Amino acid sequence: MKKVAIGVDIGGTNTAIGVVDAEGNVLVKDNISTPSHGNIDLYINDLSNAIRELTKKVKMVNPELDILGIGIGAPNGNYYNGTIEYAPNLSFKGVVHFVQLLKVQFPDLQAIALTNDANAAAIGEMIYGGAKGMANFAMYTLGTGVGSGIVVDGKLVYGHDGFAGECGHTTLIPGGRLCGCGARGHLEAYCSAPGMKRTAFEIMARDNCSDSLLADKSFNELDSKMIFDAAEKGDKVALEVFEQTGKWLGQGLADTVHHNSPEAIFLFGGPVAAGEYIFKPTRESLEAHLLPIFKNKIKILPSQLKPGDAAIVGASALVYGELEK
Amino acid sequence: MKKVAIGVDIGGTNTAIGVVDAEGNVLVKDNISTPSHGNIDLYINDLSNAIRELTKKVKMVNPELDILGIGIGAPNGNYYNGTIEYAPNLSFKGVVHFVQLLKVQFPDLQAIALTNDANAAAIGEMIYGGAKGMANFAMYTLGTGVGSGIVVDGKLVYGHDGFAGECGHTTLIPGGRLCGCGARGHLEAYCSAPGMKRTAFEIMARDNCSDSLLADKSFNELDSKMIFDAAEKGDKVALEVFEQTGKWLGQGLADTVHHNSPEAIFLFGGPVAAGEYIFKPTRESLEAHLLPIFKNKIKILPSQLKPGDAAIVGASALVYGELEK
Repeated sequence: MKKVAIGVDIGGTNTAIGVVDAEGNVLVKDNISTPSHGNIDLYINDLSNAIRELTKKVKMVNPELDILGIGIGAPNGNYYNGTIEYAPNLSFKGVVHFVQLLKVQFPDLQAIALTNDANAAAIGEMIYGGAKGMANFAMYTLGTGVGSGIVVDGKLVYGHDGFAGECGHTTLIPGGRLCGCGARGHLEAYCSAPGMKRTAFEIMARDNCSDSLLADKSFNELDSKMIFDAAEKGDKVALEVFEQTGKWLGQGLADTVHHNSPEAIFLFGGPVAAGEYIFKPTRESLEAHLLPIFKNKIKILPSQLKPGDAAIVGASALVYGELEK
Repeated sequence: MKKVAIGVDIGGTNTAIGVVDAEGNVLVKDNISTPSHGNIDLYINDLSNAIRELTKKVKMVNPELDILGIGIGAPNGNYYNGTIEYAPNLSFKGVVHFVQLLKVQFPDLQAIALTNDANAAAIGEMIYGGAKGMANFAMYTLGTGVGSGIVVDGKLVYGHDGFAGECGHTTLIPGGRLCGCGARGHLEAYCSAPGMKRTAFEIMARDNCSDSLLADKSFNELDSKMIFDAAEKGDKVALEVFEQTGKWLGQGLADTVHHNSPEAIFLFGGPVAAGEYIFKPTRESLEAHLLPIFKNKIKILPSQLKPGDAAIVGASALVYGELEK
């Protein structure tokens, strides 16, 4: 009997679905559009059909398939209520009772659970990745935004309302850069991929860097991959972007240490591919901001989840958490 | 049979000891000197004798006394190891195995446990105070320093090393004021009682406020009580100190919300006696820094522990946590 869990990752434009085995391998996967029309019933139908098609495929190879449940990662996903609430980048308005709607389609499944994408990634790291055996750790996902998930005593922290772990919105610079959420100075405005672009423009403006490899790119053209490529060629602006991003990130990670004292903090996402360009200044800045009792003992590590599959794998890991209850 | 717990609060100069009943009332209490000579064996003897004397007194009224255990609040107290580690304001050097030493004196007691003073206060708030029935909350203690304790799912967060909950050392202003710990810009350097004094001096320097009621006090004379008294008389500098302190504190509390999403954050300590002078700007600043999903739902409340007894009562509450295990 092969045990699998379904992982669903709901993004602004695409929804990725995969069937994941107990070792965290994605056996089959598919994509459907996340609708722009706001019609949740149609979308639940599409999603359910896609899940049925995928499990059918796996059953052809493993007729004795045991489907443990469905885990869903979604922006503004609320674990306690199984809802997606006021997600700015989705077309569904207000509060969507997502788990409830999916249970109607799959009444026989033991576990259907939902949380936000970064929380799902943290659970994925704990079940399948580098945090195996760690009771206290945190995970930051660096991408278009910055998400996070915090594990205390082996359990994800959901807080009183199901929304805990939004470290991308801690304040780094009072009155600083405008964040996507409307507030100013949040970590996400500095350490996300678009934040790195903003840093590059700030440096070029400050030092009038017409000779930088980045100086011919418009604000809308420049992305974090170009900054990495330029850093590899020794471009001063690009190198300073990583230096500065690490400095800010380390400051934010220190706040996480002072709150929950994790054994390790895992970093996941595009900018993390830049390796020591980002890890070195991050570690240095972390240490500079810490109380002496925390110095030289917090590990800053790259996520061990495969970049392409991490969101699906993380979401599927939610199912195991449910079954352990 | 009357059940009681012993609470011990170790401060830099004094150690307060009390016998506390199950409702959080201090039945008898005493003080001994925290030694400046660093001799731990002598101190453990003095402390043990004081505890025996106090319980003898209570037994005279309640012969059928059931002493559940001893809870200790101490700077740099490590719950996991029962140790006091490198506490800057105590004369004991290195790591002191405090619980172990006390167990030799009281081998029959079921529970002897130790944590830092702010963690003890948070447990006190949960067992005897305003956080009864709350599964997720945080507590900030504002005094000479700023301590904190965080409760997630009904359990105090100790983190991987036993030192979690040091929110006084989150960074508010990168490169800002020098903190007692050696780093710059930490919350404690702004929101502690000495932090408020620094703010008063900053404002007077900035605006040349020779007509302020605070303008005749030296840096070493001015304290937060004088600032409160001046605010009551409408002094502009003093009022701005509270306004500014609340603004900074609200920024810090927002970071705590973004990490752990507590239902409420309790404030304890001298500056809290200033009531709305501090609570109003704190709440406004908190809201301004929060993600929309957290707005208008986090309560900022004064601690319900009695100021004089809180440290003893908090420490004694540790015992109940131990017995629940």
